[in-house]
Amino acid sequence: MLSRLIIVLVEPTHPGNIGATARAMKNMAIKRLHLVSPKRFPSADATSRASGADDILENAVVYSTLDDAIASCQLVIGASARTRVIPWPEITPKQCAELVARQPVNTDIAILFGREHSGLTNQELDRCQYILSISCNPEFSSLNIAAAVQIVCYELFAKSLTLKPEQQASISTSEFATAAELELFYKHLYQTLQTIGFIHPDKSRSIMRRIRRLYTRTRLEKKELDILRGILSATQALKSSTFPVNSK
Amino acid sequence: MLSRLIIVLVEPTHPGNIGATARAMKNMAIKRLHLVSPKRFPSADATSRASGADDILENAVVYSTLDDAIASCQLVIGASARTRVIPWPEITPKQCAELVARQPVNTDIAILFGREHSGLTNQELDRCQYILSISCNPEFSSLNIAAAVQIVCYELFAKSLTLKPEQQASISTSEFATAAELELFYKHLYQTLQTIGFIHPDKSRSIMRRIRRLYTRTRLEKKELDILRGILSATQALKSSTFPVNSK
Repeated sequence: MLSRLIIVLVEPTHPGNIGATARAMKNMAIKRLHLVSPKRFPSADATSRASGADDILENAVVYSTLDDAIASCQLVIGASARTRVIPWPEITPKQCAELVARQPVNTDIAILFGREHSGLTNQELDRCQYILSISCNPEFSSLNIAAAVQIVCYELFAKSLTLKPEQQASISTSEFATAAELELFYKHLYQTLQTIGFIHPDKSRSIMRRIRRLYTRTRLEKKELDILRGILSATQALKSSTFPVNSK
Repeated sequence: MLSRLIIVLVEPTHPGNIGATARAMKNMAIKRLHLVSPKRFPSADATSRASGADDILENAVVYSTLDDAIASCQLVIGASARTRVIPWPEITPKQCAELVARQPVNTDIAILFGREHSGLTNQELDRCQYILSISCNPEFSSLNIAAAVQIVCYELFAKSLTLKPEQQASISTSEFATAAELELFYKHLYQTLQTIGFIHPDKSRSIMRRIRRLYTRTRLEKKELDILRGILSATQALKSSTFPVNSK
């Protein structure tokens, strides 16, 4: 269950934290690290704090956007200390490990960790099917990013030890949409909702976020996504054949 | 259950690790830090990595020996990645949290973490009723010391959240001996075994370690210790009244 996991650090400021994250991952046999716009990388500080997890750093992939970093992923989980205004499915590190263990073996799974001081933005959390929350002292709740990665990877590794080989190799009967496919769908949906006059581009951010939430939480399968996009295309075609297309 | 816990770092080399440990502890609402012969402390590196857990560092107590650092403790647990030649009760971080939760509220509990490169010595592990072992990648098993503290404190905090107030306040019916009392007992026992000619000072280290293990594992109560020491005193008195005292 660990080979398809990707740890994603979004805009890490301190290269030492990247190194400590690599070490924490390798200690728990998790290998794939994606970095979104790191401030400094590669860096001697990262290598030093990795303490021998050099292969994780060498194979780390740097992306300029989060969407690119998670494009292949069919399950995206975001670590966050904040409570959301819009309620979102929230899981503990232990529940996260159980969720990951239940995934078909061919599922790419991303776990996102945000900036040292501000975490993940709402827009980034909108990409996540689940919010991962680590219980801690309410009076001192800001965990070091590598410490948070360590806790999550520890639970994942502990869970992986309990699985029998055949459980690890279960194959999906249905295939979930990737994050990239979902983004294309949301873009299509947004255009369509504008086309039919349901939403106004300047006023409709919260509506789009609630719709996003609905579908993100559902974990759409590829086939379901095809159907929904078919409906959107048909709606747009109908609209353009019946009424003048919205100029915006 | 968290207020009587003491995290003990034995001879930490890097002050940054002391700071990161303080932060990891405070994140999980654990406050008491004992340091045995730290290489550098206080230190700006420690304060920087503590990221606001300054109170933990300010209240940390520095000792010159491990025995002094754990003198008041009635339960001593040692974190170790090594397997012991003499088998010892081994627990996971989760089992450690369950064990701590079962202790009477007035029990001082120490969890020991060893040097960055070499961990705890056998003599230090001999002070421990339990060995705490964190499952990890067998090919890369050296965790950063603050990362190990983070995992253990995370499990302790998570367990504390599940306890009802009345469980947290259970009072002991029997009081366990402290580490300092046990050391006096072992010294007394060693002298007595020499006096009666059972062991030879130069050859008997492994015998003493096995005897130590037996009593350490048992978790002697204060009253039991009084009885055992009474037996030792009586034995010594008998020996000196019957035969010439062993000159060594």
